[in-house]
Amino acid sequence: MISKETRIAIIGLGMLGGSYAQGLYDAGIRVTGIDIDPEAIRYAKERHWIEEGGNDPSLIKDCDIVISALYPQAFIDWVRANQQYFRSGAILSDVTGVKRKVIEEINGILRPDVEFIACHPMAGREYKGIAYADPSQFRQANFLIVPTENNSDRAIGCAKEIATLLQFKTISLIDPKEHDRIIGFVSQLCHVIAISLMNISDDPRLVNYTGDSFRDLTRIADINEDLWPELFIYNKDNLLKEIDQLISQLEQMHGLIEEEDIAGMKEKMITATIRRRRFHK
Amino acid sequence: MISKETRIAIIGLGMLGGSYAQGLYDAGIRVTGIDIDPEAIRYAKERHWIEEGGNDPSLIKDCDIVISALYPQAFIDWVRANQQYFRSGAILSDVTGVKRKVIEEINGILRPDVEFIACHPMAGREYKGIAYADPSQFRQANFLIVPTENNSDRAIGCAKEIATLLQFKTISLIDPKEHDRIIGFVSQLCHVIAISLMNISDDPRLVNYTGDSFRDLTRIADINEDLWPELFIYNKDNLLKEIDQLISQLEQMHGLIEEEDIAGMKEKMITATIRRRRFHK
Repeated sequence: MISKETRIAIIGLGMLGGSYAQGLYDAGIRVTGIDIDPEAIRYAKERHWIEEGGNDPSLIKDCDIVISALYPQAFIDWVRANQQYFRSGAILSDVTGVKRKVIEEINGILRPDVEFIACHPMAGREYKGIAYADPSQFRQANFLIVPTENNSDRAIGCAKEIATLLQFKTISLIDPKEHDRIIGFVSQLCHVIAISLMNISDDPRLVNYTGDSFRDLTRIADINEDLWPELFIYNKDNLLKEIDQLISQLEQMHGLIEEEDIAGMKEKMITATIRRRRFHK
Repeated sequence: MISKETRIAIIGLGMLGGSYAQGLYDAGIRVTGIDIDPEAIRYAKERHWIEEGGNDPSLIKDCDIVISALYPQAFIDWVRANQQYFRSGAILSDVTGVKRKVIEEINGILRPDVEFIACHPMAGREYKGIAYADPSQFRQANFLIVPTENNSDRAIGCAKEIATLLQFKTISLIDPKEHDRIIGFVSQLCHVIAISLMNISDDPRLVNYTGDSFRDLTRIADINEDLWPELFIYNKDNLLKEIDQLISQLEQMHGLIEEEDIAGMKEKMITATIRRRRFHK
């Protein structure tokens, strides 16, 4: 369905939106860029990632596909304010890391002649802004399409084509509820841990005595504080359950160490080792 | 002090002891290897990492330096059983990851004409055995010398020379109490987290929806279950305090998410980001 004639708009040319624009340009697609920052537009135009662009939402009126690379709440607000500019029959997609709330809100307000297909590219870097755009990150990353029962095959196929053009490593379909449950564990809980670890101690000498373990566990503590509180709140039910489960496991380990229960510790370690080996790349 | 005439014995030719033997051999040092496993001795001899070796502890009688690469309790037991074979004036060192208890035990039993200098090479891999020996791992690793006030300059200098010959990236001196406090945080707590995370869920589908965050946080969950319970128990006081501090931070994050306190979450995230940037390599 996507051809050299297709026009795709990217809303928000930050790290991720900029990577989309560059990746689609590399694939020969005509991209329109929308951003409130004229500097981001200039940066993308200079590199030919976008054919045209600016802060004017009416630029999307000729676009077949509109992809929001905004944060969740900004995405919802943008659609509410600017959906009169969509072409009839356009497909709308996104990149947000939480799905139930975003799908519910967008489908609650969206014009009936535009179809929203929710997507979650599992990529990202700790830095903000188009200067950090780099579509090569997608080649190692999973792309999740998160349809509801109301999505058409046309919209799902369109999301698959975008992921293929951007060269994602795997493309999977997942139910919104299942998506948010799994993301609460494999992504959000890990970020909560990294933040918590860094908040324990301010000792500047630690850096001299640190091996790879601590660096690995806290890499994601260098975090975008404008985005993540929203993601946590939109997936609050799942995330709070996961934090509770982790605290319960930590309390069990605390008990085993306190009692010097070597057999109990070994059992936890063997379980951890066996399960972790499934994740070897 | 260390010359081509110096003889160094390595007790225990596992992953770490084997890496020491190979690294010292590469530096032109004559190494004697002691191991209960004839296969490990054969492996090291075949590669010329050791000049002589076997299961006979009396082989250490001509050695100027004896380095135990055994686990903590095995090291203490070995010294108790075999210290009659030390040359008078020999220097004894080790590689164990906890220090107060090991120093106290060894100094409590050691012959007065032998000096123990405690060391902690902050290296390691998740696999056991001499087949995984690789001294190149030391070039990215910190070497900690952990002297007491009774250690001589000669013994400390000797430890520095060994670390230099093995090409460790940095060599630092640190007090035993301080060592165990810091290790409880930057190493042991991280291992407890990784084990706890892997024990939360047995869902095999997770692997399809996993980004780098979860992989990074659980890499060390593939853990040597024969070694780590000992390390945790020998540093129980510090480690239990660190687990308590982590649980307290997780409970704070839980509260902020539950209350949808965006300002509070941002504050934690900004603190985490600023502190984490100190650790950029």
